[in-house]
Amino acid sequence: MKKIINNPSHVVDEMLEGFAYANSDLIKRVPDTTVIVKKSLEKGKVGLVSGGGSGHEPSHAGFVGKGMLTAAVAGEVFTSPSPDQVLEGIRAADQGEGVLLIIKNYSGDVMNFEMAAELAETEDITVKQVIVDDDIAVEDSTHTNGRRGVAGTIIMHKLLGAAAEQGSSLTELKQLGDELVKQIKTIGVALTPATVPEVGKPGFTLDSDEMEYGVGIHGEPGYRRESLKSSRAIADELIAQLKKEYQWAQGESFGLLVNGLGATPLMEQYLFINDVREKLEQEGITIKFKKVGSLMTSLDMAGVSMTLVKIKDDKWLEYWSHPVEVVGW
Amino acid sequence: MKKIINNPSHVVDEMLEGFAYANSDLIKRVPDTTVIVKKSLEKGKVGLVSGGGSGHEPSHAGFVGKGMLTAAVAGEVFTSPSPDQVLEGIRAADQGEGVLLIIKNYSGDVMNFEMAAELAETEDITVKQVIVDDDIAVEDSTHTNGRRGVAGTIIMHKLLGAAAEQGSSLTELKQLGDELVKQIKTIGVALTPATVPEVGKPGFTLDSDEMEYGVGIHGEPGYRRESLKSSRAIADELIAQLKKEYQWAQGESFGLLVNGLGATPLMEQYLFINDVREKLEQEGITIKFKKVGSLMTSLDMAGVSMTLVKIKDDKWLEYWSHPVEVVGW
Repeated sequence: MKKIINNPSHVVDEMLEGFAYANSDLIKRVPDTTVIVKKSLEKGKVGLVSGGGSGHEPSHAGFVGKGMLTAAVAGEVFTSPSPDQVLEGIRAADQGEGVLLIIKNYSGDVMNFEMAAELAETEDITVKQVIVDDDIAVEDSTHTNGRRGVAGTIIMHKLLGAAAEQGSSLTELKQLGDELVKQIKTIGVALTPATVPEVGKPGFTLDSDEMEYGVGIHGEPGYRRESLKSSRAIADELIAQLKKEYQWAQGESFGLLVNGLGATPLMEQYLFINDVREKLEQEGITIKFKKVGSLMTSLDMAGVSMTLVKIKDDKWLEYWSHPVEVVGW
Repeated sequence: MKKIINNPSHVVDEMLEGFAYANSDLIKRVPDTTVIVKKSLEKGKVGLVSGGGSGHEPSHAGFVGKGMLTAAVAGEVFTSPSPDQVLEGIRAADQGEGVLLIIKNYSGDVMNFEMAAELAETEDITVKQVIVDDDIAVEDSTHTNGRRGVAGTIIMHKLLGAAAEQGSSLTELKQLGDELVKQIKTIGVALTPATVPEVGKPGFTLDSDEMEYGVGIHGEPGYRRESLKSSRAIADELIAQLKKEYQWAQGESFGLLVNGLGATPLMEQYLFINDVREKLEQEGITIKFKKVGSLMTSLDMAGVSMTLVKIKDDKWLEYWSHPVEVVGW
């Protein structure tokens, strides 16, 4: 394992210290917690809280700031944060208008975030939640009932964050979140596995000429292994899977996120979105907004994912272009 | 070689197409060139042009936009752009107030950018240049006389970009650039080599437990190989090298950039800056601004670099916090 770390058991704490130091103009760490919160909260706004296991940086702390999340809660690497830590995040984000939790669909996350919500209610903080299950690769994965939550979660952060800043109520945000989740779908491919620092070896193995479609962001099994294909062939496969789900018609409008899984250079991500663009043009669907970058990573995994969001409301376009002040967007 | 590409000979063109598509709100590609230019130029401002071989993304095109570069010129991977292409960049960036070239100190880049400047002068475009040689690791490297230009170039983009937007003249920008270059120093460490697509195999080899201090962003040899050390020990070594150069005194003020070389996850970069922070505090020097991220990469190389800029003028702090609209900052 080649990593720039000290004690593998302390990576999350040391990372949060470094993150808070590096970005002290935008965010701060709530002392003695794994919570990163906006430096200054605006009264009268609903709080947005997300989080989950570490190892997906810049998710989620990198999306804390004006126009996106109010707070993010970090667990150990690939491990849900405890209910106590999530409760700290809810407390930090609440400004009297309630808190919306944006939870990736992993059993541990769902359980611990829901438990925290119950604890918060006893403190008279109103909490609602949306569960993101955008990964269409597989059903009922290693740590999940149903579908996993992956890079589409960032689109939730962006659109809900804009709506919250524009003054939407908790009820409105919950409704928007539930509507968005239905329209967001992701599929990816892994070229190399990730190595968790405390484990010290890769979570799975792939031959030197092999890739696997549908691998999860914790290395959960995907749906097919084959020899490494061209960017164009990968784009074709991922788009074919998404088409099956959406059953889109010509002229329909979508947003697009191409996401690097950690070790894949931007060069390849840009090259890949060029192939995605060509294929989607052939399909006759319209891309209204798009983004490329390593936003929801899996440590040092190489690979990409592709997320679409079907635009059901032109308001979503406005939310997309709403300005933000965060580290990771 | 595991890369998401099509034909290895076409990676730069396809990447530029994808980059221009993904970021069409901010930038555009000048047709039939490798030039990325700001979508809308403001009259009365000096143009800033940088560039160089590809493979360092988001550098340099990712820094084109309001408050940073006017245009960036891309060469083939790890290869200087031709004088003709640089001339296209100068033409695209000129608004009648002249153009400043920000050149990393590699023999090919210096020669081709200077040739382009001469060609531009024949078209009555006034061109000046600054050459960035911030890498203190070695002298007279594979492609360089003197010291190499690396991640400190991004600080040049940021500070000169703010000054240009605030209306500095070409002469003032040249003067600021020359002053900045003297105050910017970088040193790095590589854990794994990069693989150029057309070559198909790593540019050098490191054992599974080995790292090398001072490797260049094209894989040029560094100054020492040893077994992989802790983040804290790496921070100590890099800071010791920088201290030798600066001969700093307690209480002096600096800016800080921790830069990922491509495949190193943000988790490690944040953890590393935490160790850098502790060591610099012990040294008694003051960090006035700081930044973490993979800004000047070397394809899929794992490792980090650390850049300091000694603050000689409080105006530089204002330039640092001047808002930008670019992809990569």
